[in-house]
Amino acid sequence: MHRTAAIISQGDEIVIGQTLDTNSRWIASRLLDVGIVPVEHVSLPDDRPAIAAAFTRLAARVDLILCSGGLGPTADDLTRFALADALNDTLLEDGDALAQITAWFAARGRPMNELNTIQAQRPSRATMLANAFGTAPGIHARLGKCDVFCLPGPPRELQPMFDRFVAPLLRPDQTRTVRVRVLHTIGLGESEIALRLHRSPGGDLMARDRIPLIGTTASNSVVSCRIRYEGPLTPAEAEALIARDEATIRSLVGEAIFGSDDDSLASVIVRTLRERSQSLTTIESCTGGLLASQITDFPGASDVFRTGWVTYANETKLREVGVPASLFHEAGRRNAPGAVSSEVALAMAQGGLREAGADFALAITGVAGPSGGTPEKPVGTVFAALASRSHPPDVRRFEFTGDRSAIREWSARAALAMLWLTLSDRREVRLLRQLS
Amino acid sequence: MHRTAAIISQGDEIVIGQTLDTNSRWIASRLLDVGIVPVEHVSLPDDRPAIAAAFTRLAARVDLILCSGGLGPTADDLTRFALADALNDTLLEDGDALAQITAWFAARGRPMNELNTIQAQRPSRATMLANAFGTAPGIHARLGKCDVFCLPGPPRELQPMFDRFVAPLLRPDQTRTVRVRVLHTIGLGESEIALRLHRSPGGDLMARDRIPLIGTTASNSVVSCRIRYEGPLTPAEAEALIARDEATIRSLVGEAIFGSDDDSLASVIVRTLRERSQSLTTIESCTGGLLASQITDFPGASDVFRTGWVTYANETKLREVGVPASLFHEAGRRNAPGAVSSEVALAMAQGGLREAGADFALAITGVAGPSGGTPEKPVGTVFAALASRSHPPDVRRFEFTGDRSAIREWSARAALAMLWLTLSDRREVRLLRQLS
Repeated sequence: MHRTAAIISQGDEIVIGQTLDTNSRWIASRLLDVGIVPVEHVSLPDDRPAIAAAFTRLAARVDLILCSGGLGPTADDLTRFALADALNDTLLEDGDALAQITAWFAARGRPMNELNTIQAQRPSRATMLANAFGTAPGIHARLGKCDVFCLPGPPRELQPMFDRFVAPLLRPDQTRTVRVRVLHTIGLGESEIALRLHRSPGGDLMARDRIPLIGTTASNSVVSCRIRYEGPLTPAEAEALIARDEATIRSLVGEAIFGSDDDSLASVIVRTLRERSQSLTTIESCTGGLLASQITDFPGASDVFRTGWVTYANETKLREVGVPASLFHEAGRRNAPGAVSSEVALAMAQGGLREAGADFALAITGVAGPSGGTPEKPVGTVFAALASRSHPPDVRRFEFTGDRSAIREWSARAALAMLWLTLSDRREVRLLRQLS
Repeated sequence: MHRTAAIISQGDEIVIGQTLDTNSRWIASRLLDVGIVPVEHVSLPDDRPAIAAAFTRLAARVDLILCSGGLGPTADDLTRFALADALNDTLLEDGDALAQITAWFAARGRPMNELNTIQAQRPSRATMLANAFGTAPGIHARLGKCDVFCLPGPPRELQPMFDRFVAPLLRPDQTRTVRVRVLHTIGLGESEIALRLHRSPGGDLMARDRIPLIGTTASNSVVSCRIRYEGPLTPAEAEALIARDEATIRSLVGEAIFGSDDDSLASVIVRTLRERSQSLTTIESCTGGLLASQITDFPGASDVFRTGWVTYANETKLREVGVPASLFHEAGRRNAPGAVSSEVALAMAQGGLREAGADFALAITGVAGPSGGTPEKPVGTVFAALASRSHPPDVRRFEFTGDRSAIREWSARAALAMLWLTLSDRREVRLLRQLS
């Protein structure tokens, strides 16, 4: 029975901070979906005794270990060796796996080299998991009472292998139910939300001994409330409990909720505009395409998003969306508002709206840094504008902190939040970091 | 002395896969910069005994623990309590910290609520670390021989606090040197690179007992070689060793190397174009702004990138960059190449080049999925085109696998790789997943 799980990611590049591990999050979310609770993620270097020790330590604590990486053909790929150590087992060459690797190279007309044969080795008491997307088969072994699955690190190999070969072998406890509901909000701070939940007339919603358990998480301006049930109730009973708590939370902070679970501001906006048969365009300066990219990351975006501009240079703002030259500082116009101003943000939005023939236009101009700041408009100063056919324009000034990437992320999210506030008739809400 | 470190990230939302932990990578990279080697990352749920147990286990193994998250005002923020448990200590209210939190709210004209006072609590034998960017002070304690630093989870608070208050307290071993050099390649597979290093005339470069240690990592089509020294040599001696190995690696795979360390394809392209006073424009369909966003994420991008288009709809491709209507299927032209074709990719690139007056133009059109695939052009089919004033056009067809986001990432990287191959006069190189 698999009630709890640990997730190991393997590789020097992760532990020293060269590479961001995204596999552990993906695996965790898949496990929770079937009712298996991840209780620890560990990232380890290419260090055979350290990996073996982690297998041993975690196998005594959880029912299931998922390990990604370290199955490649090179000398720093040590997962199979460490697993053999933990199992007190020896490695052998798996004939079927070798045939499969050979066939993989043959099918691609690429030469197979001597290093790749290592990938056919497994502990003698383990079994191989086929890999249709690369050369590294996975490995499945039983370490004491714990099932261990080792998968290759590249997400395009790991993900289909998990779904095809690991998922069918998972055995969640059918007598226990795990359900999670997440409600996402914008426009209220985390401690304000926590306080309303804490002071709820029906009792403290955030007490740690409460069932279901309720927690909050803040990520930039989005605060999410997570309702989580884990216990012996039937799925229907658990869902009823969660629905009751969701209704209570909606009564306390409902005005700020824009979506739930996998929703994001961008996905909710795409869905809402599709339902209303409305369209959106973007005109970006300092975010340089990030806003458009976030919107088009969702299937169906093509129904609402047809055109976007990255108007990085002033001449582009003028030529592509008709921002008046008189707004820029050039040609001696020292008193002009300049490229980073509410006037230019608004002109970008209105010009884009007209050129694209869209229902809504979002424009962003600002100083993402690290250079370009002035005393009046320091790095982090960003103007976002919303123009539309149906509403008066909305222009806001923000002052964000952090590095260039962080300021760009904040900016894109603020613009999306402004559109969401308009779509949900809550324009009066001030956003975090908003100056005016 | 701080030789080794462990990094803990704290929060249910991370462990169950709702949120991606980016703090651990950031901290690891900062520690390695000063010569402290991270040897483990752990993510834990909001579970006081589990966090306390991790503090205890890791404090016995490493010299330094950095913990992020769990210092917020809500009932699921448990780091301070777990740290007190591990220290066998009690919590007290820190007067200075309370004054600082009170001042933070006063300065913003926001009401301070009863939950925020918890954030002024610390174990009696610990000290507080000031936070100028939020309400949660950090905590510093000594657990046995291990220094423990707890920082708030939001990156915009954690990062400046680390640099200002933690970094000055770090004591790397001055008798040991840590140096890492990473060389990034495009156009060769990981096992091909590993084989060349393995068969190096001067001896196996990838042997695990070699000093410096050399490893490889593949991320989509980029394969990186990491040379790492850790030992008693002086920095100058260590750098000489690494320079020697770098020269050997360059002699073996030099044709594929595009950059080192923090370089990415996008940053190297921006730097190269700046040096040559050349400019770039992008015309994106399925990537929807992602390519432009990656280019503009680097300071100085404004010198080379002035204009970009997201031409998601056919009408936009026609109106903005003059793709001939005859290329699309509409109006009964069944034999036209269609929006996802080499002809349209090339027309997008050539039209964008002309409209933007740029030196280079990159265009992408494809089927990112999940719907929209056909037997001839399945999901993952992507055409990327490069047009320029100086070179004949280059159009390539790719077939990528993975979900929508993965296909978009691959596509943007392939387009960048094509431009890099042209800038480095290696156009004959085929890329991974390239069909024609």
